[in-house]
Amino acid sequence: MNKLEPTIKMIKPLDEPAMAAARARQDALTKPAGSLGRLEALSVKLAGIQGKASPVIRDKAIITMAGDHGVVAERIGNWPQAVTAQMVRNFLRGGAGINVLARQVGARITVVDMGVAGDLKPDPRLISRKIGHGTRNMCLGPAMTEEQAVKSIETGIGIVHDEIAKGLDIVGTGDMGIGNTTASSAICAVMTGRPVKEVTGRGTGLSDAQLAHKIEVIKQALAVNRPDPSHPLEVLAKVGGFEIGGLAGVMLRAAAGRVPVVIDGFISGAAALIAAALSPQLKDYLIAAHVSAETGHPAILRHLGLEPLLDLGLRLGEGTGAALGIYLAEAAARILSEMATFAEAGVSEKEANK
Amino acid sequence: MNKLEPTIKMIKPLDEPAMAAARARQDALTKPAGSLGRLEALSVKLAGIQGKASPVIRDKAIITMAGDHGVVAERIGNWPQAVTAQMVRNFLRGGAGINVLARQVGARITVVDMGVAGDLKPDPRLISRKIGHGTRNMCLGPAMTEEQAVKSIETGIGIVHDEIAKGLDIVGTGDMGIGNTTASSAICAVMTGRPVKEVTGRGTGLSDAQLAHKIEVIKQALAVNRPDPSHPLEVLAKVGGFEIGGLAGVMLRAAAGRVPVVIDGFISGAAALIAAALSPQLKDYLIAAHVSAETGHPAILRHLGLEPLLDLGLRLGEGTGAALGIYLAEAAARILSEMATFAEAGVSEKEANK
Repeated sequence: MNKLEPTIKMIKPLDEPAMAAARARQDALTKPAGSLGRLEALSVKLAGIQGKASPVIRDKAIITMAGDHGVVAERIGNWPQAVTAQMVRNFLRGGAGINVLARQVGARITVVDMGVAGDLKPDPRLISRKIGHGTRNMCLGPAMTEEQAVKSIETGIGIVHDEIAKGLDIVGTGDMGIGNTTASSAICAVMTGRPVKEVTGRGTGLSDAQLAHKIEVIKQALAVNRPDPSHPLEVLAKVGGFEIGGLAGVMLRAAAGRVPVVIDGFISGAAALIAAALSPQLKDYLIAAHVSAETGHPAILRHLGLEPLLDLGLRLGEGTGAALGIYLAEAAARILSEMATFAEAGVSEKEANK
Repeated sequence: MNKLEPTIKMIKPLDEPAMAAARARQDALTKPAGSLGRLEALSVKLAGIQGKASPVIRDKAIITMAGDHGVVAERIGNWPQAVTAQMVRNFLRGGAGINVLARQVGARITVVDMGVAGDLKPDPRLISRKIGHGTRNMCLGPAMTEEQAVKSIETGIGIVHDEIAKGLDIVGTGDMGIGNTTASSAICAVMTGRPVKEVTGRGTGLSDAQLAHKIEVIKQALAVNRPDPSHPLEVLAKVGGFEIGGLAGVMLRAAAGRVPVVIDGFISGAAALIAAALSPQLKDYLIAAHVSAETGHPAILRHLGLEPLLDLGLRLGEGTGAALGIYLAEAAARILSEMATFAEAGVSEKEANK
């Protein structure tokens, strides 16, 4: 396919003139300068990403990618692997958390089977891009081949390519995959250099003993595979997942197309670590929706230099946090374009400004 | 009028059976228990307030109250008093920050002149309830009479009474008034017992020297008036404002009608301190949208026992933070009513649960 290198080359710096124009307009709007806090900075970032002094957030999509993980053989969680496929069906029927929050924010949902273990019935609403029937158990060797790692990223690139053709002003990332906090903690430990214990959490709700076991499993996977953080594709192959690679591709292609990416929680964060290592420019295109309750997430956000918009103790994934983040991004963009200036509204300015 | 006492008597405890039913449903929804964090707790609170196992957030209003402050004679800010009236006109024309965010969340805006100094042209979209042409300078004596304090609260009660008749599932509070952070800091110091210096901030953007002067002005107002925190109406009269009293009334009447109140920032917080002192039950009906960048706001939220949903460095007022909070409340309610349960979706539950 060879989409990866050209996509990375397409990612350009933010548009400084658009940002300067947005900043100037913020200061002319009928409010004390800076009084809309982080929404002001966010509007300027959106201007730089879209390359427009007045960024527009109208066509919104959340891309939720699903995949299974061979490491579940080590019994690192409480939920049967079948839940991944069952939840994909729940997404398609509109009954999951992400369906509710995407409807509320007016975003379409694109559900992608990147590598669910079971076979899913064909469904016009499901994009089937199965790279494998789940990854292999990373405690015994690489989770996937390097070819599969590249293919998973390139699949994400292709998905966003198609979404852009439909019209796309902003994209949110989401995940589903029993076992994927284990893979994400492994990626996080490798890419941030933090100890495994520090970046491994309770996922969907582990006991103390289960958490200790999960940490040992991740340590074993790292000892067996010895992934090299300077080779992100190797890290993805050895301890990643198909949906994680797919989301990394989503981020790269969106950035290449000047589409802001609202990243969800811990799994999207792990994908962002891979993507940002492939393109250092990428992180300028990312908006961190929230800081998850999952232990390792703050380390990821620090590593990427991103400050989360929300801190609501969310840890569901699916793109639920991203949906809320898209709402705030839209608010920021609308303030910039819809508020009146002092001159337009006939409001006196601060005396010291005169 | 005598609306105050009956309204306070109408405020009842939260509906425990509705909350228990909401909690039980949250645990049956297709997600790990607790994984939607504070949105889950918020949905349960909404159930308790509305007295419905499935709370509904459809009819939304933001009530933005404007008033002027005689203390501006002490030169405690950089903006001319005329800006209060000019911004009211901006609200009516739809060009202010609150107009943008209210449109986005689908809330109507009710703009009330509680005591703007200048005369505003009659406008069908403006509710004129002027209690005075601005308060008096609290450095020289009480800002208003106790009769005016009661009347300002009862005016807020009347406004919400009318809003409920139109249909009201949630209400946000907002303010406009040059000088009103000075009055709010005075209220905050009295009601929380914190030192003036600790609860006085830069408002719309003061220098260090201006901030020091503002602190001295507030200390002088407190020395001249000696307001007694155990008499909240006296505090409102001596160092409050017409819009602050109005917002206290909004909160009391909403709670009496089992309507959740999303409070905005520092000025709404000061109003909440007065209202909560009049009815200790009130705070159960309040949702703190955000923690403002204004220095004294965290002390208010701690005093009320409220945890803010957002921390975005906002300090505009008008109800802008409340509009964002209403969105999160709606998200919480929709999750509770629209997500599928494990049984409905045919998703396996956590193994330890079986």
